[in-house]
Amino acid sequence: MGSVAHVCAKAVNGNETGGKVISCRAAVLWGPKQPLYIEEVQVDPPQKMEVRLRILYSSVCHTDLGFWLGENESQQAFPRILGHEAAGVVESVGEGVTGLSEGDHVVPIFNGECGACSYCESRKTNQCERLRCKPLKTVMDSDGKTRFSLNGKPIYHFLNTSTFSEYTVLDAGCVVKIDPTAPLDKMCLLSCGVSTGVGAVWNTANVETGATVAVFGLGAVGIAAAEGARTRKASRIIGVDINPDKFIKGKTKGITDFVNPNECDKPVHEVIREMTGGGVDYSFECAGNLDVLREAFLSTHNGGGLTVILGVHPTPRMLPVHPMELMGGRSMVASAFGGFKKTQLPDFAVKCMNGEVNLEGFITHEMPFSKINEAFKLLAEGKYPVSLSRIAELDPQGNQSSNFFDWI
Amino acid sequence: MGSVAHVCAKAVNGNETGGKVISCRAAVLWGPKQPLYIEEVQVDPPQKMEVRLRILYSSVCHTDLGFWLGENESQQAFPRILGHEAAGVVESVGEGVTGLSEGDHVVPIFNGECGACSYCESRKTNQCERLRCKPLKTVMDSDGKTRFSLNGKPIYHFLNTSTFSEYTVLDAGCVVKIDPTAPLDKMCLLSCGVSTGVGAVWNTANVETGATVAVFGLGAVGIAAAEGARTRKASRIIGVDINPDKFIKGKTKGITDFVNPNECDKPVHEVIREMTGGGVDYSFECAGNLDVLREAFLSTHNGGGLTVILGVHPTPRMLPVHPMELMGGRSMVASAFGGFKKTQLPDFAVKCMNGEVNLEGFITHEMPFSKINEAFKLLAEGKYPVSLSRIAELDPQGNQSSNFFDWI
Ligand SMILES: [Zn+2]
Ligand SMILES: [Zn+2]
Ligand SMILES: [Zn+2]
Ligand SMILES: [Zn+2]
Repeated sequence: MGSVAHVCAKAVNGNETGGKVISCRAAVLWGPKQPLYIEEVQVDPPQKMEVRLRILYSSVCHTDLGFWLGENESQQAFPRILGHEAAGVVESVGEGVTGLSEGDHVVPIFNGECGACSYCESRKTNQCERLRCKPLKTVMDSDGKTRFSLNGKPIYHFLNTSTFSEYTVLDAGCVVKIDPTAPLDKMCLLSCGVSTGVGAVWNTANVETGATVAVFGLGAVGIAAAEGARTRKASRIIGVDINPDKFIKGKTKGITDFVNPNECDKPVHEVIREMTGGGVDYSFECAGNLDVLREAFLSTHNGGGLTVILGVHPTPRMLPVHPMELMGGRSMVASAFGGFKKTQLPDFAVKCMNGEVNLEGFITHEMPFSKINEAFKLLAEGKYPVSLSRIAELDPQGNQSSNFFDWI
Repeated sequence: MGSVAHVCAKAVNGNETGGKVISCRAAVLWGPKQPLYIEEVQVDPPQKMEVRLRILYSSVCHTDLGFWLGENESQQAFPRILGHEAAGVVESVGEGVTGLSEGDHVVPIFNGECGACSYCESRKTNQCERLRCKPLKTVMDSDGKTRFSLNGKPIYHFLNTSTFSEYTVLDAGCVVKIDPTAPLDKMCLLSCGVSTGVGAVWNTANVETGATVAVFGLGAVGIAAAEGARTRKASRIIGVDINPDKFIKGKTKGITDFVNPNECDKPVHEVIREMTGGGVDYSFECAGNLDVLREAFLSTHNGGGLTVILGVHPTPRMLPVHPMELMGGRSMVASAFGGFKKTQLPDFAVKCMNGEVNLEGFITHEMPFSKINEAFKLLAEGKYPVSLSRIAELDPQGNQSSNFFDWI
């Protein structure tokens, strides 16, 4: 543990811990498909322009699962602390950090905003050159080192966040300060799935009142996209899923029609074109499947229909669309983190707090942090890669209640 | 010739010919790769909402060549009159036509605007449901018949236009009335290549002042895209072509830098990224080649770079882009007819007349109508599918001078 003083997480508060190494519990991944081990790790103080957070809530998302499974060899780095959906409180801030201080309620995000690069200055993109989602990045920018260690051995960071730990260090550009009265247990939904789904509708597609929409794959992200379309007063929101249970849940998020591909005697896009007199204005692909993506593309109408890709596609296959098919007037874009810039999120949090965006029903399972491996197992068995589950509020004993997302 | 009176084209004017069948000369294609035969054909009067034009200038474009070659079997229909780039004068109008009358100077367009469908009402698309480019369409909408015949045998229409004929009949929605003082010999450039290139920059990409641009393939469409970028005051316009002669011509259209892939020791996108500190804001693919398209895509920067597909891609290959590559912030759209709606074209014609858009240099070869087969041969030998040539002003003897476009 070297010569730097460190304290036990159980007793910390910012005043006592600031500038010191903190010892706390974290779920460490030692290799692909290995069980996560809850270890006592050391978390260094935040360096220049960094923030150390106490994580109170975290969720497990399919992106965590993909890394756990080792789906992409080039992205493997061990030991590592996964987790990117969470909510917590600022423990301390490093040199030069403004706008964040001890005790602030915050949401960490994997898609940060440095505020200084040309991409941050551009209104066209939320892909900050430095702090966008970089799966290969395992260390902090400032010194190329990790802030986590276990008996002196570095533990790698994950997606700018590493939230499966009682304490974690982030670049200040990846920390969103939210209203202190916002319910933190729900706010961790803003770290990923809900922002991705709602944002794809608001920012990427900019769906207008009265538009027709189809959502392919009614996992968390798909349901969030439907919720986004509902808030935009879409005239029709068609949900597509092979699980009819999804429709019951989807109805509360504004889904007006349901198409079950297993019950169709023709391709889904033909069904949707018939339902809508030629196709929907917008389709959202939330299933992470290229055959579904093609159906989503063909479900829009020829006169300016737009397909938004939200799903993660680990396949090596290229886009199943012919260049001349784009000439017809349909187009296709991808939405990363719903097109949200960090600076938009405090306002988004307010809209979620005041009910403009309805977060009810997204959280359906709770589980203590100590059962994180069970959470991964449930996710792995889930029918959709977009499924999302929530883990523990981290109390010192690790026996926290936790919420499970089961739009699986 | 039936019982309808008809007249010889050599003596016609609207007053004498209106409502009657006109006999005139047209270049008829009897089968794939067959020589075009100049035949005396009969052209019926325009029906409801149709217009009969006297064609004064026409050009040969690679799209004509593709059909001539029989590249796509499903699109074959013979005998047929090709040609879609032209300028002429209204001979007569059918019932219900407003805004067009005998003697008006006009440009026919393959991508029409009915003005009544939901697509025409939408600001998002120029793809009119009824009058967009439909390669399989061979007859008029109103009665499913052709207006061309030869000794009673129908001759099929082509791309709503069929301009390789002294007279042709179009839907009124495919006829653009332009300023009567506009030079008709140049205005036929607006039927296709110049509108496609300039429009892709203005309408589809909406390139802003100071933006950086790369144009792949410096045929007619590519040079027109460069001209569009010049008018938008792009800070840098990089032309990419394997023919260094193109750069000399391109300089007059605002191209600031030239990249010859054959002289690069690394992929073109790497060269362009180095030149521009990460990539251009916009790339335009005008070569009709999917490997070039991938280079164009990768040449834009990650933070909102946009690639516009203008080239025609007859290959069965799908888009050479992985869905996750779109997540990085780059996107890709296609531009049909430069995103221009018919109703925008009169204003575009004025901008071309007053020099805001520079049409000089586009026309470099002239050829009489009777040498149309030579024009096709030259095009077929051209290095780029986007090459464009111009055919004859149609005088009664068919000995007109004509212009050849040689950005080949
Ligand atoms: Zn996630
Ligand atoms: Zn930035
Ligand atoms: Zn053309
Ligand atoms: Zn229309």
